[in-house]
Amino acid sequence: MHYGADYNPEQWPEEIWPDDIARMREANVTLVNLGIFAWARIQPREGVFDFAWLDRIIEMLHEAGIAVDLATATASPPPWVSAVYPEVLPCDENGSTYWPGSRQAYAPSSPVYRRLAGELVTALAARYADHPAVVMWHINNEYGCHLTVDYSDAARDAFRGWLIERYEDVDSLNAAWGTNFWSQRYQSFEEIFPPRKAPYSHNPGQLLDFQRFTSDTMLECYLMEREIIRAAGATQPITTNFMGTFKPADYVKWAQYVDVISDDCYPDPNEPDSFRDAALTRDLMRSLKPGVPWILMEQATNAVNWRPANAPKAPGQMAALSAQAIGRGADSIMFFQWRQSQAGAEKFHSAMLPHAGTGTRTWREVTSFGKALADLPELPSSPTGDARVALVLDWDNWWAVEASDHPQNRLDYLAVVQRWYRALHRRHVQVDIVPPEHVDDRYRLVIAPALYLLRESGAQALTDFVESGGHLIAGPFTDVVDEYDRFRDGGYLTQLGGILGVTLEDFGALVTPVDSAAGTPGEHTALVSGVWGEAAGMLFAEEIAATDAEVEAAFTSGRLAGRPALTVRRSGAGSARYLATILDEAGTQQIVEHLIAEAGVEPVIDGLPEHVEAMRRGDIVTLVNHGGPETEVSVRGESVSGEPISDGRVRLAAWEWTMIRTAQ
Amino acid sequence: MHYGADYNPEQWPEEIWPDDIARMREANVTLVNLGIFAWARIQPREGVFDFAWLDRIIEMLHEAGIAVDLATATASPPPWVSAVYPEVLPCDENGSTYWPGSRQAYAPSSPVYRRLAGELVTALAARYADHPAVVMWHINNEYGCHLTVDYSDAARDAFRGWLIERYEDVDSLNAAWGTNFWSQRYQSFEEIFPPRKAPYSHNPGQLLDFQRFTSDTMLECYLMEREIIRAAGATQPITTNFMGTFKPADYVKWAQYVDVISDDCYPDPNEPDSFRDAALTRDLMRSLKPGVPWILMEQATNAVNWRPANAPKAPGQMAALSAQAIGRGADSIMFFQWRQSQAGAEKFHSAMLPHAGTGTRTWREVTSFGKALADLPELPSSPTGDARVALVLDWDNWWAVEASDHPQNRLDYLAVVQRWYRALHRRHVQVDIVPPEHVDDRYRLVIAPALYLLRESGAQALTDFVESGGHLIAGPFTDVVDEYDRFRDGGYLTQLGGILGVTLEDFGALVTPVDSAAGTPGEHTALVSGVWGEAAGMLFAEEIAATDAEVEAAFTSGRLAGRPALTVRRSGAGSARYLATILDEAGTQQIVEHLIAEAGVEPVIDGLPEHVEAMRRGDIVTLVNHGGPETEVSVRGESVSGEPISDGRVRLAAWEWTMIRTAQ
Amino acid sequence: MHYGADYNPEQWPEEIWPDDIARMREANVTLVNLGIFAWARIQPREGVFDFAWLDRIIEMLHEAGIAVDLATATASPPPWVSAVYPEVLPCDENGSTYWPGSRQAYAPSSPVYRRLAGELVTALAARYADHPAVVMWHINNEYGCHLTVDYSDAARDAFRGWLIERYEDVDSLNAAWGTNFWSQRYQSFEEIFPPRKAPYSHNPGQLLDFQRFTSDTMLECYLMEREIIRAAGATQPITTNFMGTFKPADYVKWAQYVDVISDDCYPDPNEPDSFRDAALTRDLMRSLKPGVPWILMEQATNAVNWRPANAPKAPGQMAALSAQAIGRGADSIMFFQWRQSQAGAEKFHSAMLPHAGTGTRTWREVTSFGKALADLPELPSSPTGDARVALVLDWDNWWAVEASDHPQNRLDYLAVVQRWYRALHRRHVQVDIVPPEHVDDRYRLVIAPALYLLRESGAQALTDFVESGGHLIAGPFTDVVDEYDRFRDGGYLTQLGGILGVTLEDFGALVTPVDSAAGTPGEHTALVSGVWGEAAGMLFAEEIAATDAEVEAAFTSGRLAGRPALTVRRSGAGSARYLATILDEAGTQQIVEHLIAEAGVEPVIDGLPEHVEAMRRGDIVTLVNHGGPETEVSVRGESVSGEPISDGRVRLAAWEWTMIRTAQ
Repeated sequence: MHYGADYNPEQWPEEIWPDDIARMREANVTLVNLGIFAWARIQPREGVFDFAWLDRIIEMLHEAGIAVDLATATASPPPWVSAVYPEVLPCDENGSTYWPGSRQAYAPSSPVYRRLAGELVTALAARYADHPAVVMWHINNEYGCHLTVDYSDAARDAFRGWLIERYEDVDSLNAAWGTNFWSQRYQSFEEIFPPRKAPYSHNPGQLLDFQRFTSDTMLECYLMEREIIRAAGATQPITTNFMGTFKPADYVKWAQYVDVISDDCYPDPNEPDSFRDAALTRDLMRSLKPGVPWILMEQATNAVNWRPANAPKAPGQMAALSAQAIGRGADSIMFFQWRQSQAGAEKFHSAMLPHAGTGTRTWREVTSFGKALADLPELPSSPTGDARVALVLDWDNWWAVEASDHPQNRLDYLAVVQRWYRALHRRHVQVDIVPPEHVDDRYRLVIAPALYLLRESGAQALTDFVESGGHLIAGPFTDVVDEYDRFRDGGYLTQLGGILGVTLEDFGALVTPVDSAAGTPGEHTALVSGVWGEAAGMLFAEEIAATDAEVEAAFTSGRLAGRPALTVRRSGAGSARYLATILDEAGTQQIVEHLIAEAGVEPVIDGLPEHVEAMRRGDIVTLVNHGGPETEVSVRGESVSGEPISDGRVRLAAWEWTMIRTAQ
Repeated sequence: MHYGADYNPEQWPEEIWPDDIARMREANVTLVNLGIFAWARIQPREGVFDFAWLDRIIEMLHEAGIAVDLATATASPPPWVSAVYPEVLPCDENGSTYWPGSRQAYAPSSPVYRRLAGELVTALAARYADHPAVVMWHINNEYGCHLTVDYSDAARDAFRGWLIERYEDVDSLNAAWGTNFWSQRYQSFEEIFPPRKAPYSHNPGQLLDFQRFTSDTMLECYLMEREIIRAAGATQPITTNFMGTFKPADYVKWAQYVDVISDDCYPDPNEPDSFRDAALTRDLMRSLKPGVPWILMEQATNAVNWRPANAPKAPGQMAALSAQAIGRGADSIMFFQWRQSQAGAEKFHSAMLPHAGTGTRTWREVTSFGKALADLPELPSSPTGDARVALVLDWDNWWAVEASDHPQNRLDYLAVVQRWYRALHRRHVQVDIVPPEHVDDRYRLVIAPALYLLRESGAQALTDFVESGGHLIAGPFTDVVDEYDRFRDGGYLTQLGGILGVTLEDFGALVTPVDSAAGTPGEHTALVSGVWGEAAGMLFAEEIAATDAEVEAAFTSGRLAGRPALTVRRSGAGSARYLATILDEAGTQQIVEHLIAEAGVEPVIDGLPEHVEAMRRGDIVTLVNHGGPETEVSVRGESVSGEPISDGRVRLAAWEWTMIRTAQ
Repeated sequence: MHYGADYNPEQWPEEIWPDDIARMREANVTLVNLGIFAWARIQPREGVFDFAWLDRIIEMLHEAGIAVDLATATASPPPWVSAVYPEVLPCDENGSTYWPGSRQAYAPSSPVYRRLAGELVTALAARYADHPAVVMWHINNEYGCHLTVDYSDAARDAFRGWLIERYEDVDSLNAAWGTNFWSQRYQSFEEIFPPRKAPYSHNPGQLLDFQRFTSDTMLECYLMEREIIRAAGATQPITTNFMGTFKPADYVKWAQYVDVISDDCYPDPNEPDSFRDAALTRDLMRSLKPGVPWILMEQATNAVNWRPANAPKAPGQMAALSAQAIGRGADSIMFFQWRQSQAGAEKFHSAMLPHAGTGTRTWREVTSFGKALADLPELPSSPTGDARVALVLDWDNWWAVEASDHPQNRLDYLAVVQRWYRALHRRHVQVDIVPPEHVDDRYRLVIAPALYLLRESGAQALTDFVESGGHLIAGPFTDVVDEYDRFRDGGYLTQLGGILGVTLEDFGALVTPVDSAAGTPGEHTALVSGVWGEAAGMLFAEEIAATDAEVEAAFTSGRLAGRPALTVRRSGAGSARYLATILDEAGTQQIVEHLIAEAGVEPVIDGLPEHVEAMRRGDIVTLVNHGGPETEVSVRGESVSGEPISDGRVRLAAWEWTMIRTAQ
């Protein structure tokens, strides 16, 4: 269990370093991420490297017993890079260049950028591969964070190369993209561009491939650096920091190349439900690499700087969210950053050591939590296998389902997934976040919302799951297109229709509340009535026929009044449901309770109020009070340090947390 | 009476074509628009044409008795065009290129585009001019639809040429644009640019001329193709599809070069009043070419794909809107498109033959309406002369009145015209939509709202109309500038002031409700009281003096309380009114009823509720229930197929329609 | 006391000029600003000048006794300039060019522009330096009005030069900007760009310097022209017209180079409180150059053209606002423009002589006010020293405090300053608007809101003020950074903390009402309770500790309930308060009344209602009724023309004004 932060000693005179080290020890810091933005200091110009200062600080840290996660520093090229090679600069879809002066001003597909980054990493790896202080390598930083997509000529050339790799001949591409539509047929790959500004909608196949290309291009940069490090003989684990549910990078694909998953997570302290969305990202990280603990690589000790208004964290909120991460599988708690900057765009971002000094609440909480972590015994190292529910999240589908020109163009896929997750979370049910192919009979219940793009392999896994006795709920806007964003032959629900016992004729888009606030007329909701009560459906009111299924709920208002809204087809011990609308929060909560009851899924602890979170990690149950009233919880087990729990009850005041060792 | 759709066989393997033909016959399809986006398939590269597939499908259609409206396919150049000739690509006002990958990525003023389009049309015309299947030519597609304006260097050069044509010498242009203002005086045409991004407001004369140029440039493309087709000896009618009240193209000017007017119309099925706005566009199409039926060239069978949320049409709504078109003069009902696409940006756009197949409501309605059409007898071919009311709509004025730097910069000209039209429509009054020059004594009542730019010829026609006994209502913000957007000497209302008996001192802008919602202080409405009741005036509360007119209504609130809001000057049997504000919907309804009563204008059928529409086409009256409660209508006449109407009453359930042959 | 307008005779045929002159005399016009946009007419092409027409109109004016403020005409280059030298065109941050066709299409840093402008001014100055009609020079026009910032290559080169001037060596710049952050370290000035579009936040030091550079670059243009005029031997005063509280130009710095301050002022006649904001700008103009009257160089006689809706002025409103300017130190009342244009983007902008002619209310008011001005006796020429309150406004701080990445990113600095000013204004208290360095013991009360960037010299002046017995109120978000936008060592409030007796740990951002309307959760206000009542705090709820101060008010809601919201530290006769939030309008009013009572500040006249404004200029008190009910005011003194005031009372109807000579 590591504790620490990004450490940027290059921002400070060396006289301050000893104080840094002393304070780190005071705070029980055991690990720092070193040099993430140090390229300009390490390599002041092409061919010239200055490692002396880096040697010194690594040595100082090492002597103090603080381990180093050494960054490759390639996340932000120095100004000289684009001054000498302007072709490394990325562009937006309008052809406007992203200039230097901020960070990340490079095209990931630029051959020059890759060569220079490679030279830097080669030098770093040669020097520090064997350094005993270096316990991990931190490649780049938050790939795609600010420059989520690049349309430059470098991207154009690389996209063509990627397409040649994928399709080999241009007629395969023409078939995949359906380019006979709108006279888009290509004669050669040289005629293809990134989806830059155009008069109207782009080809959806092109858009989808460009999103894949964008993710893959960043991954190529990562792999290039990884190979250099390994080629230098380094044996430490290699990571790069993810950003939770980050649409531009398909982390399921990335995860196989990352030794330890690490994640940056900045829930809005002002947003009452943000701790539930944070829980989702922690479950995603755990699910990405089953059986391996992950690292909470960045979070804030207090306020950040980049929201419209940056509220501080409440007293105890930082520790509560950190405990949540540990409870959901994290094995290190790290922050951005160690010492608050004195200048630059992030000087108002909180840090472990605030600008206002050690006489601050932030410092007290940082040192106190460091102490608590140091006192923790070793936790189960393989925190998976506890979830009986899988919630399906798929990047290919995310990209496709949010493309334009759909029946409903206001669909926010992540919000739909989050709504399901929040309902499960309020019932204290443990959940894995997986692509459809990872669904198997470990699970009792699988929720697959809006799985518009459904690969054959995914459809097969879901079908197998039901046939082996699992409980599935899917829809709406599910099983519509293939992996090229083309309709499959034969209509909709061509893969899942059989197991669901349903056919679909019409997606029945409803005007969204946002439009309605602007005065748009039309139907906004479709009321639904079922055994579990009444609820409002939104976004879709699909016209389905229950050809081989029971109707569990029907629409009761609007154009489809009397038509099925929720169906179920039982198949041995299993069941497959189709929901023809997106329920509001209350309706989603009702149906979730119905589903977990039927599937026999147990909460981690029963009867808890919603502001107390309970999560299981092997035999450890973590409890966190997220700022609600003091609550008494009945538990069976002993404290994590081995003491009995008197009376079988723990009391948690606002923002308090505890870990209990239970008999599973 | 034709029935059919855009047909894009190039999107499908040829094996499917026989099924297409069979289904077309099942649906009573008689005409298809062929090859609209087929350029890439017809001409895979410069100088190479592939007509074999086109020959085959035309032959198949011909054998099946299905006529062809042959498209020239120039609406979307293939990728090779801009790959070889990047200078054909258009730009936005910021200099950003519109790249290929969508459709319509060409500058209409590009000489290269015109040469290549010309070569394509030449080849097509040579091959199919005499083909018996080809009954019409369909030039390009929806000119200006997505690329409404182009600021490229091609546009720059063409604009200079257009200006030289118009002004001959640069000092005439300087005088017309008033370039002594802001040091804008030009020494030569070579110094002039399109109104690209500038630090502040553009010269209004330049803006207006650039809008004329934009319309004329697209018209030049059309005329070029038309001349090629005629030069090849083709004698079929030639058309291009309009888009209703489409601001960028002056359809009044275009209409003279189009043999048959055709229109694309996509009312929002979710918007309760959209059928009234659709009626306006149908009346516009009929008015553009009096005495010649027009074609409803595109509509959707069900949902479209390009709105934020694309609601389906209600059962029967498609037929109801089609009947409306026929009732207002259409002689063919066509759709986009025949078979729903399997890929591409429009795959969710409904079609005659849905992706979900023939077991769908859409297919049942399509075949059923095809049957109904086939059963219709021939309708009066010259459906004009029925209207006694003219509503003035003028493109030059539209462009000028919505320029910036006006007293009121929130004026939506079309919305103002539509508000008047809706009020007439609710009273079932037949209306023509005309420029002021087309006003004559066929009409009893003429409504001329916001005719800011009023040519001498238009002012003369309106004056003659009143003097010959007609009833005119004009204003506010009317008769302000000449055709160069310059004030006329002598103040405002310099042309109509005499016949109106009014002078104007001040436009008295009111803050719009949009601003007010954002909290803008100030006056938002000016209450008006007249013989017909109370109403709220918006946008303007003009300060007028009734120098030679009676005051029919006065402002009762705000700065102008007690001052005239509506005046009338009687002139023999005629009358001329000036309205110094824009009334809300209720007030507009009240004044319309007052006006039609005075002018002796009769509704098509009296006493109908607002959800039932009645329209006259010669001796045929069409009745449509637009989704309201079942309604019984008393009619005199017989059914269109010649049967007597029992009891003199017809009952129309929601979305039902009928046609009655009346004694006029 | 001059009266007049911008006069653009080049827009009219010479036949109209005699009528202009005659009407000017009718309106008591004594001064015109001539030729502001006449470059194209004076210099039709490079090297060719046409002064004949200008000679004629100057002569005509001179003969009529109308003085000339001669413009240098450099504000809008003619089209030939950019046709010949496209490199003069400016760019936006995306690299998009600002094209000609409007006005002001030049980069102020362009060497070519400067050369051409210099040649024009040289020719003008040579010809008219000694002309007896020319009583003043009017350089350029509204520097930065539409083109507030330029990112062109010309700007890039000039910015580098400006930085070299400021920092001499690049390591000083690196230290000032903190470029070790995010790998931004520069090796040479040649690597630096303007803050063009970038992937994420720019360096704050770079942004701040670029704003300084932008202001200085325009000032360089001004100084270049000024030197040319003086070099030609001209001795008249030289001015350029300011635009009130205009963020892009630091008028405090400019003022030292302007002989007579002149200002353009266009309050929204529709906005009830706009006359108070206008009063602030007039007080700012007076404070910029103490002891010298200033000129109201432009205002509108009636409506303008550039707002979304341009309401007319109420009858009398123009005179009322003009009297306000005189009351606050103006010695000339001028308009844009003399004769309303017939064409161009400003033809709907009102003028002294309206397009609708002399039979209009506008003309009646213009002539009537001209008569009133002519009847005024000479007023005290040195209208300063009357204010006992200083409100601090500082451009460096304005630029810095509104940068991004702050705890609160919705802060509108000017709105905060205006809120304080409005509260003082409602109590009829005379105020100076000054940078902190101009604070001294002339004042009894100093208000320093949101002084985030506080120079040492400013901090010293505020400290001296308190120590010499003055009353200061500061905060929140005050004394945070140095002049490079870097935190000072040692935390926050490092300079003022001592005198205030306060330390600050956390800025406690509150979500703004704008966000809240969009549904953002979180705390929006923090209630505050103090001796003066209850109020709502917004934007900040800072966590402060009153280490050496009394608590005068505390937060009563939210996270900080019970913590200090307002503190006071008394220091001899003086006091220093810190306010930890931004109060709503009512709260600000309450605290202002508390403060002026304590500081012993007297209103100009006591007991006036809020719609009547009273201001002092030496022994003259001006009273204006800004459109409220007729009000009777008790005054001591005589009318400005020397007549006794019967009964000691004057009655002011809506929009009436009067001047009283009082015994001070």
